[in-house]
Amino acid sequence: MPTIEQARAWYTDSDPVHDFEHVLRVYRMAERLAEAEGADVEIVRAAALLHDAQGSASGSESRAEHHFASADFAAQILSAEGWDSARIAAVGHCIRAHRYRGTEKPQTLEAKIIFDADKLDVLGAIGAARVIGYATQAGTPWYVPPSEQFIETGKEIEGEAHSAYHEHLFKLRKVRDRMFTETARAIAAERLQYLDGFFERLIAEWNGKK
Amino acid sequence: MPTIEQARAWYTDSDPVHDFEHVLRVYRMAERLAEAEGADVEIVRAAALLHDAQGSASGSESRAEHHFASADFAAQILSAEGWDSARIAAVGHCIRAHRYRGTEKPQTLEAKIIFDADKLDVLGAIGAARVIGYATQAGTPWYVPPSEQFIETGKEIEGEAHSAYHEHLFKLRKVRDRMFTETARAIAAERLQYLDGFFERLIAEWNGKK
Repeated sequence: MPTIEQARAWYTDSDPVHDFEHVLRVYRMAERLAEAEGADVEIVRAAALLHDAQGSASGSESRAEHHFASADFAAQILSAEGWDSARIAAVGHCIRAHRYRGTEKPQTLEAKIIFDADKLDVLGAIGAARVIGYATQAGTPWYVPPSEQFIETGKEIEGEAHSAYHEHLFKLRKVRDRMFTETARAIAAERLQYLDGFFERLIAEWNGKK
Repeated sequence: MPTIEQARAWYTDSDPVHDFEHVLRVYRMAERLAEAEGADVEIVRAAALLHDAQGSASGSESRAEHHFASADFAAQILSAEGWDSARIAAVGHCIRAHRYRGTEKPQTLEAKIIFDADKLDVLGAIGAARVIGYATQAGTPWYVPPSEQFIETGKEIEGEAHSAYHEHLFKLRKVRDRMFTETARAIAAERLQYLDGFFERLIAEWNGKK
């Protein structure tokens, strides 16, 4: 089993939205979900540590394929550690199936847990920090009142900025419905409520009302 | 009186921590405080729109002197609008006295209101967004557990990162005690409570506990 210190060396990126701290948060959450759901904790831990190990930086060319590259990298690492091929394949499936828009969907409990743990990191106070940090990096605003069209369809009108609040409305609020495990869905519901409250408050303060 | 649309042209910077949206939030808050405290609303409005008009970008060389440059710029603008010299001087004092570490302290109710409105923008959900956005821009982490020395003295030990949470502990939590008006202190108390809760929650989530 790779150690956390070994894993740290695979993540050299300083991008705070997908840095090693994100990996550690997914690792701790995946461990918690694995214990609650009765999954194979070792497979979950290895997959969490390796899930973004290759090419995951926001906006990088390799990001769209980072789940394949990371799964291949995981196979090399775990094979060198003497893991058997069935367990390496199980970790590989977890990593390939963790993407929100990926074509390989989670089939095993362990893969469902990695997917859920990764998605929980876009909700709650962490989710607020990440969506604000991402907008700051991308040079997009934190809050612009969305158009009616955007609210109805998720598509901006001509010239409308995609603010952090737009991302919240269009993507973050839907993440919970995509989760697989009951444990994660309960955590997501509570985190989403917090994130909704964060934006509600941000907007009230923005307008000098709070 | 300069209009908001005129003022927008003075702020060409895309720095989201000190951009025109910050100016508009200060403007709306300063208006609210002026009404509650019985201040001269026109002086407060002009000072709010002009307070960061010159050289306020985070990390820019001119930032340390931006309150003087902005006060000079305000005098030109208001003089061209036909304001009398006493009212121009009143606006100039508001702008020069708005800095947290400035040497000119607010003497008038209007200057106290501009100071307070500007500082309220570092608290609450806005404050959370700004401190996270600032750390993201500066490439410093959002959260690192502070050393005992930092907690006691506000000075980092050798090699300790100054995370957004450090900034919260060392600076943001003290802002309320620096405020002048009762109205602002009440708003600050409520916003600080929210910001404390934000970081408490961020840390619990960081550790997979929430």
